[in-house]
Amino acid sequence: MRSRTLFILLTVFFLVSPVKNSNAGDWGTGALMVIIERETSSVLVLDSAQNDKVLGRIEGLGLLHHATISFSRDGRYGYVISRDSLLSKIDLIKLKLVAQIKVGESAVGLAVTQDGKYIAVSNYKPGNITIVSNETFKIVKTIDADKSKTVGLVDAPDDKLVLSLMDANEIWIIDTSTEDFPVVKKLKNVGVKPYDALITPDGRYYMAGFFHSPWIGMVDLWNLDKGIRKIPLPVPDDKKGQPPVLKIPHLEGWIMAGGNLYAPVIGGSGLAVIDPATWRTKKFIPLLSYPVFAMARPDMRQIWANFVMGENNDAVQVVDVKTQKVVKTLRPGKKIFHMNFSPKGKKVYFSSYGDDKVAIYDTKTFKLLKEIPVKKPSGIFCTDRAHKFGL
Amino acid sequence: MRSRTLFILLTVFFLVSPVKNSNAGDWGTGALMVIIERETSSVLVLDSAQNDKVLGRIEGLGLLHHATISFSRDGRYGYVISRDSLLSKIDLIKLKLVAQIKVGESAVGLAVTQDGKYIAVSNYKPGNITIVSNETFKIVKTIDADKSKTVGLVDAPDDKLVLSLMDANEIWIIDTSTEDFPVVKKLKNVGVKPYDALITPDGRYYMAGFFHSPWIGMVDLWNLDKGIRKIPLPVPDDKKGQPPVLKIPHLEGWIMAGGNLYAPVIGGSGLAVIDPATWRTKKFIPLLSYPVFAMARPDMRQIWANFVMGENNDAVQVVDVKTQKVVKTLRPGKKIFHMNFSPKGKKVYFSSYGDDKVAIYDTKTFKLLKEIPVKKPSGIFCTDRAHKFGL
Repeated sequence: MRSRTLFILLTVFFLVSPVKNSNAGDWGTGALMVIIERETSSVLVLDSAQNDKVLGRIEGLGLLHHATISFSRDGRYGYVISRDSLLSKIDLIKLKLVAQIKVGESAVGLAVTQDGKYIAVSNYKPGNITIVSNETFKIVKTIDADKSKTVGLVDAPDDKLVLSLMDANEIWIIDTSTEDFPVVKKLKNVGVKPYDALITPDGRYYMAGFFHSPWIGMVDLWNLDKGIRKIPLPVPDDKKGQPPVLKIPHLEGWIMAGGNLYAPVIGGSGLAVIDPATWRTKKFIPLLSYPVFAMARPDMRQIWANFVMGENNDAVQVVDVKTQKVVKTLRPGKKIFHMNFSPKGKKVYFSSYGDDKVAIYDTKTFKLLKEIPVKKPSGIFCTDRAHKFGL
Repeated sequence: MRSRTLFILLTVFFLVSPVKNSNAGDWGTGALMVIIERETSSVLVLDSAQNDKVLGRIEGLGLLHHATISFSRDGRYGYVISRDSLLSKIDLIKLKLVAQIKVGESAVGLAVTQDGKYIAVSNYKPGNITIVSNETFKIVKTIDADKSKTVGLVDAPDDKLVLSLMDANEIWIIDTSTEDFPVVKKLKNVGVKPYDALITPDGRYYMAGFFHSPWIGMVDLWNLDKGIRKIPLPVPDDKKGQPPVLKIPHLEGWIMAGGNLYAPVIGGSGLAVIDPATWRTKKFIPLLSYPVFAMARPDMRQIWANFVMGENNDAVQVVDVKTQKVVKTLRPGKKIFHMNFSPKGKKVYFSSYGDDKVAIYDTKTFKLLKEIPVKKPSGIFCTDRAHKFGL
């Protein structure tokens, strides 16, 4: 009996030893969709490459209003920043929270450095940039922003970070590859109250929008000595003489497609088509309402727009870039808060906050492929962000 | 004793049930580097996100001269096409060959459709396109190419495939979303003997090079009715009146950076800088020798070139796109056959066929980070290809 017990114990030992991965998922991490469940401190994980199978839910992530997610270079980990500055590292294979740290009181964005070593958070309160080590998940540096809220934080080539100071009206560049994370450049008087920014896909141009200045501030990271270029905000040709639009929302959603720049502008229910050489508005494409997000399918052939407020909050419209016309209006569900594409754009995902679901459509046929129950969904983030500057 | 045995057995059962994944690797698949071992029918798998840890080797993949790899949408599976038309599906988590099929006698390329459902192989012999189901890994369609070798096969938006017919001088478009995979367009007399092609990153323009025609053939997939545009091959300004370069090798390596097109041209030891608006050669950047591959760092700030033949086969040169000058010459090892970047360009990987190693450098400091023994390495492929049209 003893030897049999020993055999069983040895078998147990043999089986136990590799079981440290027993919770590991049997899936690749290249094309996962991570969806914020806005009211329940959780995210739901789908696999876009496996017919949008629900892989699981991860909970305990703080207040997720305006939450955003960036990813580790291999797509394995998501970094979630909550509205109350709780930074969480979630494992998308084991489907669990693996590390968490409170980095402030109020935050709006984050960035992962090019080398994947650090996660930086832009805090509104206290106004700073807090840099956390991916390995230890401890704070390695806090860069005080002269009591200013920080916004528009992005990663840039050569392990740089770029950000805007909302109250100090500056743009800063941080070098995370140098000991002690120095601020290597401070551009001053860039515009009054920057509220958001983007970096172009090549990581070269940083562009900030301002609440109280009628221009876009552009910094060429290859030519920092040239300082900031102030590009007047576009005025539609038929509104000449009027003040420019006050604000271009969600700079992240700016689109260069077919040689033109497309932007949703406040002051009109539609999309402005802007000539990037002159920054003149060449055309205005009317839509059902004022678009909140306008996003290009990854091949830049289509632009999809949603409308959070008002009676058309259930609608999504598709503009064909070739003809510059609306080719489809869909109504995927109540309160479409966000959308995203599978990596090559075959499918598009809509968060219907009002109907507690994510609806998935084919972007070629516009047919509904699937609906998945999700608790009060908002932001949808694909792990392919891991490979894109500024995301 | 019996109850204890029962407890142990129950424990064993409990532990056994989830163990089906026990061979699964504990890593994300977003940034794996898969390296062809040219003479041993094998590939080595590194994880660029885990300090280039060697994850393992997969064997039995056929004759790997000129072999290439595409990936499933989630980066989990690699599809390897051998020179002798053996198509293999390799699992990058379990690190094993999971399916294999012989699709012809001689092949040069492959493409995965946008939806990930099919793998298409371009065969030289017999001249055809063979389409394999990813699910069953059986041939679902063979499209005869009028006895012509097929080359320059790429995937395009809306589940299209585009290819060139080397002997028939045509470009074809296949629709894989329609039953029976029809050839929806045949462009004729495009040029004499197409040898390679590329598709632009947005999946809109297909460009073919020809052995016996002095132009590049460009097809705008948004405007197929316009047919083929024949763009004269560039002639450097100081060689006016002479015939154009005979061939631009490795079209895949064409680079749009800083507003110019960079191409290695036969007939000069260097890189031509071409104005894409006029296709005139504005400048010629001399290099050590005739470059075989010229590749841009993902942020387009640097171009790296290697030289397979001659005394400089151990050298790599770096051109800074801002100044258009050579800023660094490295000698990473004998016979540098190929190179590739980590997804955001922090690191660059060189295959040294002559020294049986892969050498990894930091692209900012140009410092050697690591050398890894690899058996006669050639092509290096990163799983981030999964998200790029034409790769």
